[in-house]
Amino acid sequence: MLNELRRALPAGRVLTDPDILAAYAHDEALWAPHDLPLAVVRAHTAEEIQQTMQVCLRHRTPIVPRGAGTGLSGGANAVAGGIVLSTERMTAIREIDTGERLAVVEPGVVNETLRSACAEHGLWYPPDPASAPWSTIGGNVATNAGGLCCVKYGVTRDYVLGMEVVTGTGELVRLGRRTAKGVAGYDLTGLMVGSEGTLGVVTEVTVRLRGARAGERTVAGYFPSLSAAGDAVAAVAASGVVPSALELIDRHTLAEVDAWKNMGLSAEAEAVLLGRTDAPGEDEAQVLANCFAEAGATWAAVSSDADEAEALFAARRLAYPALERLGPVLTEDVCVPRAAVPEMLRRIENIGARHEVRIANVAHAGDGNLHPVLVVPADERERAQAAFEAILDEAISLGGTVTGEHGVGLLKRGGLTRELSPAVLAMHAAVKQALDPHGILNPGKVIASCVPSS
Amino acid sequence: MLNELRRALPAGRVLTDPDILAAYAHDEALWAPHDLPLAVVRAHTAEEIQQTMQVCLRHRTPIVPRGAGTGLSGGANAVAGGIVLSTERMTAIREIDTGERLAVVEPGVVNETLRSACAEHGLWYPPDPASAPWSTIGGNVATNAGGLCCVKYGVTRDYVLGMEVVTGTGELVRLGRRTAKGVAGYDLTGLMVGSEGTLGVVTEVTVRLRGARAGERTVAGYFPSLSAAGDAVAAVAASGVVPSALELIDRHTLAEVDAWKNMGLSAEAEAVLLGRTDAPGEDEAQVLANCFAEAGATWAAVSSDADEAEALFAARRLAYPALERLGPVLTEDVCVPRAAVPEMLRRIENIGARHEVRIANVAHAGDGNLHPVLVVPADERERAQAAFEAILDEAISLGGTVTGEHGVGLLKRGGLTRELSPAVLAMHAAVKQALDPHGILNPGKVIASCVPSS
Repeated sequence: MLNELRRALPAGRVLTDPDILAAYAHDEALWAPHDLPLAVVRAHTAEEIQQTMQVCLRHRTPIVPRGAGTGLSGGANAVAGGIVLSTERMTAIREIDTGERLAVVEPGVVNETLRSACAEHGLWYPPDPASAPWSTIGGNVATNAGGLCCVKYGVTRDYVLGMEVVTGTGELVRLGRRTAKGVAGYDLTGLMVGSEGTLGVVTEVTVRLRGARAGERTVAGYFPSLSAAGDAVAAVAASGVVPSALELIDRHTLAEVDAWKNMGLSAEAEAVLLGRTDAPGEDEAQVLANCFAEAGATWAAVSSDADEAEALFAARRLAYPALERLGPVLTEDVCVPRAAVPEMLRRIENIGARHEVRIANVAHAGDGNLHPVLVVPADERERAQAAFEAILDEAISLGGTVTGEHGVGLLKRGGLTRELSPAVLAMHAAVKQALDPHGILNPGKVIASCVPSS
Repeated sequence: MLNELRRALPAGRVLTDPDILAAYAHDEALWAPHDLPLAVVRAHTAEEIQQTMQVCLRHRTPIVPRGAGTGLSGGANAVAGGIVLSTERMTAIREIDTGERLAVVEPGVVNETLRSACAEHGLWYPPDPASAPWSTIGGNVATNAGGLCCVKYGVTRDYVLGMEVVTGTGELVRLGRRTAKGVAGYDLTGLMVGSEGTLGVVTEVTVRLRGARAGERTVAGYFPSLSAAGDAVAAVAASGVVPSALELIDRHTLAEVDAWKNMGLSAEAEAVLLGRTDAPGEDEAQVLANCFAEAGATWAAVSSDADEAEALFAARRLAYPALERLGPVLTEDVCVPRAAVPEMLRRIENIGARHEVRIANVAHAGDGNLHPVLVVPADERERAQAAFEAILDEAISLGGTVTGEHGVGLLKRGGLTRELSPAVLAMHAAVKQALDPHGILNPGKVIASCVPSS
């Protein structure tokens, strides 16, 4: 198989150096199982991906597509006897069309590279996952990545108009459109988005863009309890204002950021809310500040200082690395109805106490997407895994979902079977079988039962 | 089969009166083939739909799901030996949640009924097809309906969070979510939207809502040529302003509306553009007016009079009935990149001349979605059909699609095979086979090759 692959591809594409294999064996999810791949293929073109697929089809060799490897669910983890197919070298921005407000990019383009390129044309690609400086559009499409601004502007799927894909039968096809609207056939484009490489390998993406925004205003609030912060989130939802970001950081996280960077943030607050609004004028910012104050903030204000506002969001961005100083961390990604945010935060606190696991909270609170971060030294792994699953169950019981934006990968497969009914899981398996009839596309991800067949 | 159906359902659900069968035999698409159904089932509950599906599965009886029958592509046309399954009696709005900004509705709820109910809570359900006073949410979901405001606010799929569906294997399942975000498994909800009843029967829909808007401002422009109006559309796109509506009405349409209602609209203009903006302040309206003027409008102004503005949009809404006074009409639904609107309008004009078919144009110009209306007395049908197909081909050649918002149904099946590659059509067939393994769900719609099998 490897010789056939080498013959089919230009020199240097097929890598088998043990260090490289190890580097491409997994993404950033703690604990998700992985093996060493047989080889890593770093494709430069769609045709090379198609060639790779065709060789793998002949040999029934599993293919694990991979972007930058920044995933948090094990979706890009290598499979024994399979290859990892990296699109990181496909970095061309082929087109930015200012009139139609769309961009056509290769999958290896880094999210922030695209955002910067759009900005030069007065345009904006909204999805902004925390991994934006490193993660690629291909990976963002595979996981339907979200971010801070999706509370107002939606997630990756809302921006993908069309794509070029190598299918599970080795065809290179175009899905979707370049027009503003279109209902010609099934929404296979939307189906591919978030399918984590289990239904096809994306070789080009056409994304919708928005016009660049005027500046944002930042509103900060310090709260004496997580519930008060949760009440403020509910108050914002009820106010009618849709903030362009509404982030929550709890005391544990603030303390660690402070301990690391000495930013003087923690004060006495149990939680900080950071809101942003990009509406013209001061009105919306004032509404946010009032919601914070009425929910019991000890301090709430519209930031009049851009540097200060930037520092607050910098603290948000530093949350993960700060917590990682304490030991390995596992990031949760449950999403609940907005009104259930305070209750979910309480339940997470209880789970931490019950399982004796240190849990810090950061959250895209405005859309109910919570990222409890479990800090887990190696000897606490079992307790942490129990806490992890308990959090998924609580989210489901509050009408939420086990994954808001990170994907199912390997870590949430159990949660998925608890969230979806057997009939819906059977629909997933049927769709998977229809589009990947030989089961070689990222087998074992998303749906546990879908493994390669000959 | 009918006796079994009658036994399975409450009295009065199974209708076989010949007049009723005839009334439910087709939608509003001219020429689309149809037969008389064996029976019409008017279901009142999801369980009744499930019962119906299970009886039909046992007998391999085709089921044609139907909302209000206002479709324009033949998607709800009856099949010989099949039943028509109407959801028009399922009219409950089960929930409007102001905090989460969502509504849960039965499929038979009329679009405008939902919009009015939302308005009472200060909320807004944006999709506004021209059929809004009659068409149902179930039908809107089946066709992924658009409308005037989708140039700024998107189409039905952008608002469907989740649904309850009776599947092709007779299961009653929940798809999607109630949360703002979620990536738990494949986007089967989005796949169902726009699938025209070929993958399942929707029994409940959860839609996302927006906050009610402040008032809109209307900007009107009269143009000496279709190209000048097309240039104005391109100028608006380039300006960065996203209007909340941007509609085009051509001379033929204006003349017929005037001949019927004597509204004094036609004047000397070859085309009228009607723009709307809902941004606060006067700025955006003035930008639209300037774009109109600079593209060569003979008259362009922000309407200072709400009644006058309403009259202009009334003329837009009267376009179809006014043209129907001339004879049977066939409404096209191509969508092209915005920049191609002037060229597409020229090509439509040429097609009309070449095939000697009277074609009037109305268009959601702001998103490149054109609705050329072919006026075709019975003896001109062949020429009109040739013109109809020629328009599809021109749209494809300009990088557009054969259907922007009306769906494929029966009328666009040929166009679909020209727009999509054989490999993509094969993916459609595979997905259809996966989710409707016995081929009883609206057979023959969307993909011609998918017919019932035993």
